[in-house]
Amino acid sequence: MKAVNFVAALAASTVVAGSARADEGLWTFDNFPAAKVRAAYGVEITPAWLDRVRGASARLSIGCSSSVVSAEGLLLTNDHCVSDCAQALSPKAQDYAKAGFLAAMTRDERTCPGMQADILLQIVDVTPRMQAAGAGLTGEALVQARNAVGGSLEQAACGADRKLHCEVVDFYQGGRYQLYKYREYTDVRLVFSPGDQAAFFGGDPDNFNFPRYDLDCAFLRLYDDGQPAPTPAHLDWNPASPVTGQPVFVAGNPGGTFRQQTISQLQTQLDVMLPLDMAEFSELRGRMIRFAEESPANARAVDEPLMDLENDYKVTVGRLAALDDAEFMAAKRADEADLRARATAKLGPTLGDPWADMAAAQKAAAALYTPYRQLERAGEQSQLFGYARDLVRAAEDRQRPSGERMPRYSDTQLATVEKQVLDPAPVEPGLEQLILEFWLSKSRELLTADDPDTRLLLGDDSPETLSARLVSGTKLGDPAVRKALWDGGMAAIEASDDPMIKLMLRIDPAARRVRRDYEDKVEGPAARAAEAIAKARFAVLGESVYPDGTFTLRLSYGRIDGWSWLGRTVAPFTRFAGLYARATGQAPFDLDPRWIAARPRLNPDTVFNLATTNDIIGGNSGSPLLNAKGEVIGTAFDGNILSLGGDYGYDGRVNRAVAVSTAAITEALLKVYGAEALARELTGE
Amino acid sequence: MKAVNFVAALAASTVVAGSARADEGLWTFDNFPAAKVRAAYGVEITPAWLDRVRGASARLSIGCSSSVVSAEGLLLTNDHCVSDCAQALSPKAQDYAKAGFLAAMTRDERTCPGMQADILLQIVDVTPRMQAAGAGLTGEALVQARNAVGGSLEQAACGADRKLHCEVVDFYQGGRYQLYKYREYTDVRLVFSPGDQAAFFGGDPDNFNFPRYDLDCAFLRLYDDGQPAPTPAHLDWNPASPVTGQPVFVAGNPGGTFRQQTISQLQTQLDVMLPLDMAEFSELRGRMIRFAEESPANARAVDEPLMDLENDYKVTVGRLAALDDAEFMAAKRADEADLRARATAKLGPTLGDPWADMAAAQKAAAALYTPYRQLERAGEQSQLFGYARDLVRAAEDRQRPSGERMPRYSDTQLATVEKQVLDPAPVEPGLEQLILEFWLSKSRELLTADDPDTRLLLGDDSPETLSARLVSGTKLGDPAVRKALWDGGMAAIEASDDPMIKLMLRIDPAARRVRRDYEDKVEGPAARAAEAIAKARFAVLGESVYPDGTFTLRLSYGRIDGWSWLGRTVAPFTRFAGLYARATGQAPFDLDPRWIAARPRLNPDTVFNLATTNDIIGGNSGSPLLNAKGEVIGTAFDGNILSLGGDYGYDGRVNRAVAVSTAAITEALLKVYGAEALARELTGE
Repeated sequence: MKAVNFVAALAASTVVAGSARADEGLWTFDNFPAAKVRAAYGVEITPAWLDRVRGASARLSIGCSSSVVSAEGLLLTNDHCVSDCAQALSPKAQDYAKAGFLAAMTRDERTCPGMQADILLQIVDVTPRMQAAGAGLTGEALVQARNAVGGSLEQAACGADRKLHCEVVDFYQGGRYQLYKYREYTDVRLVFSPGDQAAFFGGDPDNFNFPRYDLDCAFLRLYDDGQPAPTPAHLDWNPASPVTGQPVFVAGNPGGTFRQQTISQLQTQLDVMLPLDMAEFSELRGRMIRFAEESPANARAVDEPLMDLENDYKVTVGRLAALDDAEFMAAKRADEADLRARATAKLGPTLGDPWADMAAAQKAAAALYTPYRQLERAGEQSQLFGYARDLVRAAEDRQRPSGERMPRYSDTQLATVEKQVLDPAPVEPGLEQLILEFWLSKSRELLTADDPDTRLLLGDDSPETLSARLVSGTKLGDPAVRKALWDGGMAAIEASDDPMIKLMLRIDPAARRVRRDYEDKVEGPAARAAEAIAKARFAVLGESVYPDGTFTLRLSYGRIDGWSWLGRTVAPFTRFAGLYARATGQAPFDLDPRWIAARPRLNPDTVFNLATTNDIIGGNSGSPLLNAKGEVIGTAFDGNILSLGGDYGYDGRVNRAVAVSTAAITEALLKVYGAEALARELTGE
Repeated sequence: MKAVNFVAALAASTVVAGSARADEGLWTFDNFPAAKVRAAYGVEITPAWLDRVRGASARLSIGCSSSVVSAEGLLLTNDHCVSDCAQALSPKAQDYAKAGFLAAMTRDERTCPGMQADILLQIVDVTPRMQAAGAGLTGEALVQARNAVGGSLEQAACGADRKLHCEVVDFYQGGRYQLYKYREYTDVRLVFSPGDQAAFFGGDPDNFNFPRYDLDCAFLRLYDDGQPAPTPAHLDWNPASPVTGQPVFVAGNPGGTFRQQTISQLQTQLDVMLPLDMAEFSELRGRMIRFAEESPANARAVDEPLMDLENDYKVTVGRLAALDDAEFMAAKRADEADLRARATAKLGPTLGDPWADMAAAQKAAAALYTPYRQLERAGEQSQLFGYARDLVRAAEDRQRPSGERMPRYSDTQLATVEKQVLDPAPVEPGLEQLILEFWLSKSRELLTADDPDTRLLLGDDSPETLSARLVSGTKLGDPAVRKALWDGGMAAIEASDDPMIKLMLRIDPAARRVRRDYEDKVEGPAARAAEAIAKARFAVLGESVYPDGTFTLRLSYGRIDGWSWLGRTVAPFTRFAGLYARATGQAPFDLDPRWIAARPRLNPDTVFNLATTNDIIGGNSGSPLLNAKGEVIGTAFDGNILSLGGDYGYDGRVNRAVAVSTAAITEALLKVYGAEALARELTGE
């Protein structure tokens, strides 16, 4: 009930704030619009401010962001960014991802397998060198020439120093190339995780929703030569209560976005792809939920895939909501019309009409997408089918020179595929049967029963009988069997009577055909049109706009604010009291016992989670939320469901980032987890 | 494979035919556009032709159409129109709906319980009387005055003659009123049903698809005073092979259509309602499919609900496909703009702006639909919850005068509700739990966990725990318990500790509130705007356009033709050979044993099912397909999936009706079912 009172109390301030300008942008640190921020928020973002924040932002190889928050290499990130590490470190009888982890002393901190952290040291423009490298070339030759020059630039800057990492990054689809030089840490250790129950309280129902009550934070530590890395240039920890309307900044590494997609591309998403996703994710979700209810073993087997599926489902819902919104699409249309007009005026007839080319490719997509999806993509949700496909295709393709193979089986990638195929991994037969039956039945529905490809998939079987026969008959769950087939090459494949291998052999010509069709008639033409549009945009707008996300360091500005949507107003803060009010004792709204015990000690008014207008996207998870002074006041861990439209564009009315406050983290460390040393390290007290 | 050859062979003719004009229209028999048909097809539809077809068309009270095809009252309709009757007539050990039924002799024909057939005798215009009755009145008074005058007109025309039936029909939303006078038959007997396996071969995968291989026909007989009714004015049966491009006509009773919906209404369907339906139907389908696979008992329990759900799902897919089509929507936009311009010119400022009023109601719908749907509509899929709701609401409302109750509990409807609540009906607890859990979990997802209405629904339970507790604890499955609560009124309801009753009491105020909100802000304003638009349309266009479907007799013209969609061309015919080529032995593609046995005797080239451009919709099931001479050459039983957009408008490029040919029916009667007497009665041989 508390949440409703917040809404009433804060409605007024939200309305005023809602009239402010859109806080759009994934800005690079060398092109931050400081003047705009000064005008909008009266905050001065100086070069020194940018340098300090850059030097204390660490990109995590797991696909997350983080910040350095102590002089001894302590990193703040999200719990969901360390859960794989926590699981890998768990001893047999314990599950750190579920129960959490706290290193009592420094020597108890444990290295996360495979995790690396990169701190950006320097940005150097290498555009002339890279563009010269490609001059006069096209296609494969262009790619190779650019790779060669890029590689030598990286080598020249970083050399053999294993503590450095260099990358040439392509911004604006070839408009700007820059060398990003990082300090790389290869020993990153787990310090603290609160565990799932507190970090993901509310589970799927709350995922991408707000109000939210999650302690989705975790701490790691950078190590250098076996010792905590000295990091004097860290950010200050400010556990004070945040304030509505306060200007805030997020420094992190947004992943790929699709904001330059044309109206015809967005329309294809809206009309063709997203409805198919919606129907498919929903039905599979229904089958999996019922499967989970059949037995505890089924529930365990489906736990992770169901969580991923429900996440994908919500992403689809959010994207549909954005593209269904008339105002959002009208703004996209106006942008496109404006760009076309300016590009035509500037470039004249050399421009051609890449928007028409894109529309033609999208028309082809509407016809070709369903068979491509069902024959070439949908089946790979089955682990066993995935093995069969890699075994059959690798055997076939290895007979040809690398350049004539599918990219996945080229020499550079073959070792990775081999490792994936041969690594032991448990197979859940019941779940496999469910996934295969669903794939086959949905293929029959979408392609229709008469389609030759449906006949090829099913033969005289039904989805029910074929999936049961495949799972009971295949031996591909055994790594030794897979190894024999991998080593035996095409001869072994052709001699195999494994039903999964035989299915793959039967459908492979058709699957390769639909893939080729889709590449030739949709993806290839669309990529060429997109590049021409990107060039035109850069010619007209240059760096006055930000480039799409590239999982490199960006800075977003904004303010703490709620939003209104369909007549409902959402306040920007939740507090500890709300967590207790909403906990029902039933999963996923059941409290961690430590939080039940700590209740009398906690200040119920502590701001727990908050919503901000910052423009963030996947990859930003774990990013610090900063105040105007550059102090850490939280860590971003999610967006509201409407922010999922952020793939296509930022809508300041409704896109919101969601963070957990330093106020809540500090209070929880002290009063829930007894992590006093860690709290002292943060607050310096 | 055969189907693909058809495509190649017929592609040329299809392209030519595809350029012909759209064959749109649900035309009344007194306003048929004979001149248009003459111009398009060179066929002369004379008043005598119309009279003959009208006099041999029988509307079935089950919501279907049929035609008189012998002098002894024989009716041709669809198998799916008689399956309820067949099931009701089945003895304990047999299921006629599944196995089929053939009356060996006339005396074996069995009366279908409750079935009536109406043949239209006369149409009399009563517009002046009806409009005068409403003059100066609005609201409830208007409705009552019209009902009174309509009733007296019906009484005057039909009197107490139980063999007549009269109805005043409102066309063009008040533009035209006509008295329809019917000869009514109350003794309609089952003669022949081929049974599900042949009539619904291909099951859900083939439903709304084409090519199709279904013998979805059945025969009934009209009886009069216990004897087969003499029907000299029957239609002739022509079992010759149909020809591509041939002009064809469908006489039947299309139900309600929504073709006059405004763009803002269609946009609400596309953006709000259909995506919700798609996600909901899909997930529930997934849960039900897995539930069915858990045990044969579950499979039986869910068989019928799953078939209905899959039908609803496909209807949603078809509607989405129509509204997602840019050309279709552009045509609708152009129509609306044209009508607005002409109406403004003709009516001036008295017109107001009902389109803007409608758009405002649609904006309200976007905000209010989800809570309305989840609190007031979605739960009624549960039989037990349905009982609880009727018991609680009837008890509450019976305390007030009839006019102040919800319409469902007014004096005129209360007896029907009481019968529904008290009639014994089996309850499937497992299925009930599944449906309740799904409803509750989807409500939490859509309303979000924080919504006060979610808290009201769930309390401190989860959807899983609450649904289990409701089903195990409720006694509402027992008709005696329901009777005691019904008879006991509000005192008994309030004293009850049945968990389902308590849930309903808890949510009823909120559910009534969202219903009232939706009625006041969406349905009421939308109905007023729709009526104003309908009046404007009739003022401008009069009877030059056809009225929306009213489940009264209409005539559609068209031709036998396939279609092309997304690069795929579909030929208009299937043949017996195709049935055998596609039968796999696995459900739902397993053949009826009688068809397996008959294969050597059947001509494989017999045209089985066919596609035509006729504009039909639900209610047309069982309609005769007629050639230019008015001879029966088939019966319409379905549309292709794109025809489901027919609710919103007819798109001649892709809307197709699907019929089973008289050629196939005749051959099957003789060679599969040994129904020689029936075949002789049809062919007169």
